[in-house]
Amino acid sequence: MMSGSRGERNREPQNLAAEGIGKAPSLSELGEFGLIRRLSALLPESLRPGEVGIGDDAAVIRLGDRTLLATTDALLEGVHFRRDWTPPDDLGWKALAVNLSDIAAMGGEPRFALISLGLTADADLEWIESFYRGMADLARESECAVIGGDTIHSPDRIYLNLTVIGEAPEGRYVTRSGARPGDRLLVTGALGESLAGYYALKSAGERSDSGGAVSEEGFPAVPEGVRACIRKHFRPVPRLNAGRAAARTGFVHAMMDVSDGLTGDVRHLAERSGVGIRICLADLPLSDALREAAPFLGKDAVDLALAGGEDYELLMAVPPKHVEAVRESVESTGVPFTAIGVVTDRPGEIVQVHPDGQESPLPLRSWDHFRG
Amino acid sequence: MMSGSRGERNREPQNLAAEGIGKAPSLSELGEFGLIRRLSALLPESLRPGEVGIGDDAAVIRLGDRTLLATTDALLEGVHFRRDWTPPDDLGWKALAVNLSDIAAMGGEPRFALISLGLTADADLEWIESFYRGMADLARESECAVIGGDTIHSPDRIYLNLTVIGEAPEGRYVTRSGARPGDRLLVTGALGESLAGYYALKSAGERSDSGGAVSEEGFPAVPEGVRACIRKHFRPVPRLNAGRAAARTGFVHAMMDVSDGLTGDVRHLAERSGVGIRICLADLPLSDALREAAPFLGKDAVDLALAGGEDYELLMAVPPKHVEAVRESVESTGVPFTAIGVVTDRPGEIVQVHPDGQESPLPLRSWDHFRG
Repeated sequence: MMSGSRGERNREPQNLAAEGIGKAPSLSELGEFGLIRRLSALLPESLRPGEVGIGDDAAVIRLGDRTLLATTDALLEGVHFRRDWTPPDDLGWKALAVNLSDIAAMGGEPRFALISLGLTADADLEWIESFYRGMADLARESECAVIGGDTIHSPDRIYLNLTVIGEAPEGRYVTRSGARPGDRLLVTGALGESLAGYYALKSAGERSDSGGAVSEEGFPAVPEGVRACIRKHFRPVPRLNAGRAAARTGFVHAMMDVSDGLTGDVRHLAERSGVGIRICLADLPLSDALREAAPFLGKDAVDLALAGGEDYELLMAVPPKHVEAVRESVESTGVPFTAIGVVTDRPGEIVQVHPDGQESPLPLRSWDHFRG
Repeated sequence: MMSGSRGERNREPQNLAAEGIGKAPSLSELGEFGLIRRLSALLPESLRPGEVGIGDDAAVIRLGDRTLLATTDALLEGVHFRRDWTPPDDLGWKALAVNLSDIAAMGGEPRFALISLGLTADADLEWIESFYRGMADLARESECAVIGGDTIHSPDRIYLNLTVIGEAPEGRYVTRSGARPGDRLLVTGALGESLAGYYALKSAGERSDSGGAVSEEGFPAVPEGVRACIRKHFRPVPRLNAGRAAARTGFVHAMMDVSDGLTGDVRHLAERSGVGIRICLADLPLSDALREAAPFLGKDAVDLALAGGEDYELLMAVPPKHVEAVRESVESTGVPFTAIGVVTDRPGEIVQVHPDGQESPLPLRSWDHFRG
């Protein structure tokens, strides 16, 4: 389930909204998730007990006594990445990372990956090999074998599609749909850095006429915090160890990765679980790097943490009495773990608690591929 | 491993050949398979005994006592299909069929599929739902669950990427690399029909200004044989039962599907097995439909059978003493099985035997995505 704030540059589908009333709903009316629901209904019903189909971070399939996890994600040049901003090795890393994050979000372990590569005529061997090296770096670190693929010619844009198959150890996995009222909402790591990195690249890209790759090395004068955010944007680390550690406790009711942005992702969790969510803005984990980068970029750090997708942190719903046990397990992997809100019994209500204690609806700041 | 003769319409990458001497080889110099070899070398070595990586119809992975098969294939509008020629339900069928054929070619059974869909703004709900219905038709027939996917906006072209995970029953599968001198070469079904169907559509498309979908219904005056070839082009049937039946005998030394065209595919088989191949042109299985369609289209039936990819028939190397046992097993699934040649001990030599007994090198008539 991959999208991202960078997609905002491509809003062409707005004309879909001009379709007439009384016809089948247009794609923009349905939205990405409405479309997925509608298409799922056309497929043969073939899931067995304990299996999970379309709509979670990864699908779950039983094969004998094994529990497999499967996810696929596409990255399209000009929609999900810009070649002139993105070093190819970082792109290779990230293309695998977004898929591994879906496995992490189920509490699983990656086993193998398949890659489809659509290459334009101007993508030279150096670019492609650098892309593969970045992908191989993360494959090695995460013990995920890249075992096959398809390579074709693409006339206009490079596109990448990765599929990762993982396993749920001892059949234990966590979906998005088990959050219950009273659960605490917790998140790994820190939020907003990737989006801050994106804004830094965008601003540098707009100032530069070179057309060459923009990288953190190109900013000798910018604060270290900004550079750290750019690194996070280019090389997000999927939270495989933290997700596994959390799932192993057996206490996590629901889990997903933050890939679309917190304000959108909490909605998905709430919708799948049939609950409401209250987020305390003062509790959002903001890194020192983000606190340094935000004013430099003229942005508000809390806004970045709320809107930012692509941090690939894990969001979890945990009953209060087990929070400390899950925290101990997650933090033993070296990853911070922060309580940012609670699950409520008011389905669909997504509320923000301001630092002064006032509450208000939390507006959506998320990118959906089919809405304008 | 998907390509296809229809790709011949898009020969843009020719300018790659203009790259300088002394640099790294260009993509056109490497070719698709050279590129795949070079990229594979960059990946961590992670295959265990009994596993197969990049370069066969599907990859093979062991998980506990299960043997998984995995394949991924991309279809790009304007490269692999034309929307104005292809009814969306047929495209949905075919997108799944090409992947199932890779599983069939290993002797496996499909388990589940994941789909990535890149949709343009003008792809309306009706088109997408029809596409899904065609895919669901084949998913149902082949007992393959479609369990998840990714849907994104694509600015220029519709692109589709399917991944299918299958299993090798009792761990028994057949690769491309086991052919031995003296083996008979056999093929299921009939060859050339899909390419004849493509030429019929091309000729109708060139005569038509309507811009609407071209389908077999649009040809009331053409012979039934031509219409049968168009149906084969749109709805190829992956040879899952025949592939399984063949693998189950334990007598098949090598197997692959005919997807690029026979002249190219026998080369892949010969290269992977380190052998030569001799094809008897008089023995190629030509259907009545093809014999009727070829003269109507101004083509030679044998040429179509040699050049045509996308029939998705299975090619097998079987030792002579076991040919009858394998034939009985394959034909019990209702699929014809024809001996078309022999495997020789002259590595890389691909020879055609003409009806008069003369022999000559068999020229390549195959589409490779990176060569002109």
